[in-house]
Amino acid sequence: MTPGTPRPLGSQPQSGAPGTSSTPDGQDPSKPRKRGVARRHLIFGSAAAGLGALAGAATLLPGRAEEGGGTPSDTAAGQEGRPHGTGTVPFFGPRQAGIDTDAQAHGNFVALTLRPDLPRARVKALLRLLTDDAARLTQGRGALADTEAELAASPARLTVTFGFGPGLVELVNPGQRPSWLKPLQAFGIDRLRPEFSGGDLLLQICSDDPLTVAHAQRMLLKDARSFATVKWVQQGFRRAHGTERPGTTMRNLFGQVDGTANPVPSSGWHEEVVWGAGSHPAWMENGTSLVIRRIAMNLDTWDELDRSGRDASVGRRMDNGAPLTGTDEFDEPDFEALNPVGFPVIEDFSHMRRARPEDPAQRIFRRAYNYDGAPAAGEISGSGLIFASFQADVERQFTPIQQRLDELDMLNQWTVPIGSAVFAIPPGCEEGGFIGEHLFT
Amino acid sequence: MTPGTPRPLGSQPQSGAPGTSSTPDGQDPSKPRKRGVARRHLIFGSAAAGLGALAGAATLLPGRAEEGGGTPSDTAAGQEGRPHGTGTVPFFGPRQAGIDTDAQAHGNFVALTLRPDLPRARVKALLRLLTDDAARLTQGRGALADTEAELAASPARLTVTFGFGPGLVELVNPGQRPSWLKPLQAFGIDRLRPEFSGGDLLLQICSDDPLTVAHAQRMLLKDARSFATVKWVQQGFRRAHGTERPGTTMRNLFGQVDGTANPVPSSGWHEEVVWGAGSHPAWMENGTSLVIRRIAMNLDTWDELDRSGRDASVGRRMDNGAPLTGTDEFDEPDFEALNPVGFPVIEDFSHMRRARPEDPAQRIFRRAYNYDGAPAAGEISGSGLIFASFQADVERQFTPIQQRLDELDMLNQWTVPIGSAVFAIPPGCEEGGFIGEHLFT
Ligand code: HEM
Ligand code: HEM
Repeated sequence: MTPGTPRPLGSQPQSGAPGTSSTPDGQDPSKPRKRGVARRHLIFGSAAAGLGALAGAATLLPGRAEEGGGTPSDTAAGQEGRPHGTGTVPFFGPRQAGIDTDAQAHGNFVALTLRPDLPRARVKALLRLLTDDAARLTQGRGALADTEAELAASPARLTVTFGFGPGLVELVNPGQRPSWLKPLQAFGIDRLRPEFSGGDLLLQICSDDPLTVAHAQRMLLKDARSFATVKWVQQGFRRAHGTERPGTTMRNLFGQVDGTANPVPSSGWHEEVVWGAGSHPAWMENGTSLVIRRIAMNLDTWDELDRSGRDASVGRRMDNGAPLTGTDEFDEPDFEALNPVGFPVIEDFSHMRRARPEDPAQRIFRRAYNYDGAPAAGEISGSGLIFASFQADVERQFTPIQQRLDELDMLNQWTVPIGSAVFAIPPGCEEGGFIGEHLFT
Repeated sequence: MTPGTPRPLGSQPQSGAPGTSSTPDGQDPSKPRKRGVARRHLIFGSAAAGLGALAGAATLLPGRAEEGGGTPSDTAAGQEGRPHGTGTVPFFGPRQAGIDTDAQAHGNFVALTLRPDLPRARVKALLRLLTDDAARLTQGRGALADTEAELAASPARLTVTFGFGPGLVELVNPGQRPSWLKPLQAFGIDRLRPEFSGGDLLLQICSDDPLTVAHAQRMLLKDARSFATVKWVQQGFRRAHGTERPGTTMRNLFGQVDGTANPVPSSGWHEEVVWGAGSHPAWMENGTSLVIRRIAMNLDTWDELDRSGRDASVGRRMDNGAPLTGTDEFDEPDFEALNPVGFPVIEDFSHMRRARPEDPAQRIFRRAYNYDGAPAAGEISGSGLIFASFQADVERQFTPIQQRLDELDMLNQWTVPIGSAVFAIPPGCEEGGFIGEHLFT
């Protein structure tokens, strides 16, 4: 690498919430939500302490009318003290939501296996059904036969993003499989488990509310049941909505600031990296691809490492994510800088140095989630990263990076890929259409 | 039951956040958090779209100084648009936090088994260590040897509540085991699994932020490792912080409003139900007990039931939680009311009717969490309730209710207890002390 060659990715804290709008849920319960204060007064009788608490409650619970109309973004909703659960992200449009959308706090990744010998027409029926469910649920309405419709009333920016595995595309329209739509090559670092790998149909279900995610997942899987079985479910999280200021880069369970050098939605870089116009077969125009790697993180051995070792492993400071040659998270790293004894300040084996492409084509958009499962017997944690990366072309953009990291990356000492899957993300659709419709033409 | 006999429990939406205060985290990073706009301007170069996004981000990211001082409650913090992550619940005090505390969005329940032949003095050392960790983490400071201290900076109302199983108390001070501190009797409905039952030491870790819970759990288990092994971890959730208005009663995964008839913290009822002064051995004064039942909920068969069947199963309306004899969630149920054909409007087998005690002594304080694990092979969901109930005396208050429900309860058709554990919740402690100290005297 020569000075200046590694190009910055136009990284930036994710701002606002592109494509996000907030609307009232339109689900006013048939009964007014008065709290029956007079009645409760009677109930409490002489319990004075109870009455005190009651008065407090009344102050805190202004009428539902106050919720009023929509606000332009869910961030604004939070800032005005409104519940953020009514925030919605549009479902219909040329591109699917859940990619450029500011990452929500919770993300479940669900992979399905189509039932054996499922006819093509049934796949279409499945996609129509799930599209309809997703369109409704994301807007805060129950799914068609929603038996727990009340759980749908707070979408909290719910998005449902569909991905097609190689099996589904081969079944529907064999000639139309993009060449990159296949399992990744085997890497030396991989210890893949079938229970976290592959899949015919992916549902990426993200929301700022965990109950909303659980309900949406249940509704989608209920409707998918006669067409497909669940291959795997991976549940991920980031900081809760509003824990930190909007725009704060997420941290992973190593404590690292993770996501700094990521192309920002609505920047030119991002457009090219994720949507790469013109590179797709017609049915995928305005689509992209998603690689999901489940990567176990060994917190025990990581914790044995001191601060400077940790900083060195990535080439960035643990405390604020700044490159070791700078002071601010978004300072541009200087890979040529040497320390007093003549060694590079950012080591050649560091994750950042290895992950940063010389070739500007090799860029990806990361939208990862932490996972933290119950520890296995004898362990005290079962933690890792659901590494999720969007890019127009897996082979051209993602694979070379993964190859480099496979060869050499200090982080490999503490991380092990245990799951892997590749999906084509078809374009969005308009009302009346369904996700993936152009694959059937 | 004669008219008027079932006494209301002083139920009320949980208001405010008793014992909650909000303080800045005191963890200002050494570097100012400026976003380096000028620098980034250069980085973006001619990417006009990027510059546009950047300007937006700058507006959205006012300086950290604005975070200012503490606010009286975390609710207020949310309403003023401040990140709620800095909200803290005091750790030290006569009673442990995490009980009267307004239930946080995420709750992990972790049960430990003491290592064989652990000497009494080592149990003391363990409790001192974990007390110190909890005191620090809940106030937004890293644990003593915290290797990912940045993850501790947003406590988001973190509480860590300690519970002692029979084994721990017997080991430390055999004469001091309350008679109710033992496994519950076997119930006919039980299908208990050892991997969700029992335990010597419980850590109930609750916060509005899932990353905070994961980090606190890790730090506690790291320090506990040489003293104890993990027996089980149960991860639960409710609606995210701010999804709905404060005071909204939670819903479980059946979609039911769950928690209406619950004694409200700071009411007289609650004081008696949970803390029942005078009923404890001296070391437990200002303590209580916790029963945890992991209850699988069969969403498949539940979904076959129509609305009126669902309403009837509890005796309350699914849509707003009102009793079938009323219109508002907090209306008092009328168990004597008959329908036109002469049957009770609220059925005798309904969960509410069976759970509501005739004897006013039989009251409990429920603080449950939903769980939603990855579905088992061939299933589409693995959902249920981490039923957690606090009461001064398990045998006098909890067991009779559970016995009645075991005998007859419509809900039993769709629910199966698969885990069970009982813990003594010792009092809180002051700075310099440790949780459980009086057990060692
Ligand atoms: C558990 C596994 C991983 C961890 C903990 C991790 C962590 C990090 C961290 C802390 C950074 C620096 C901050 C940032 O820009 O986000 C980073 C950057 C990056 N990582 Fe990873 N990473 C992991 C896996 C991967 C994988 C599997 C890939 C792709 C195959 C990857 C690609 C990248 C890229 C492209 C960057 C930006 C490099 C640049 O500065 O240009 N990472 N990662
Ligand atoms: C998955 C299992 C369970 C579900 C889904 C469930 C659901 C409900 C629902 C919807 C209500 C009515 C609203 C309310 O007041 O909260 C309720 C009330 C209640 N439940 Fe449960 N419950 C479950 C298990 C239990 C267990 C194991 C106990 C105790 C042994 C229990 C004790 C109570 C009590 C005491 C009430 C209040 C009754 C009253 O109105 O006085 N529940 N439950």
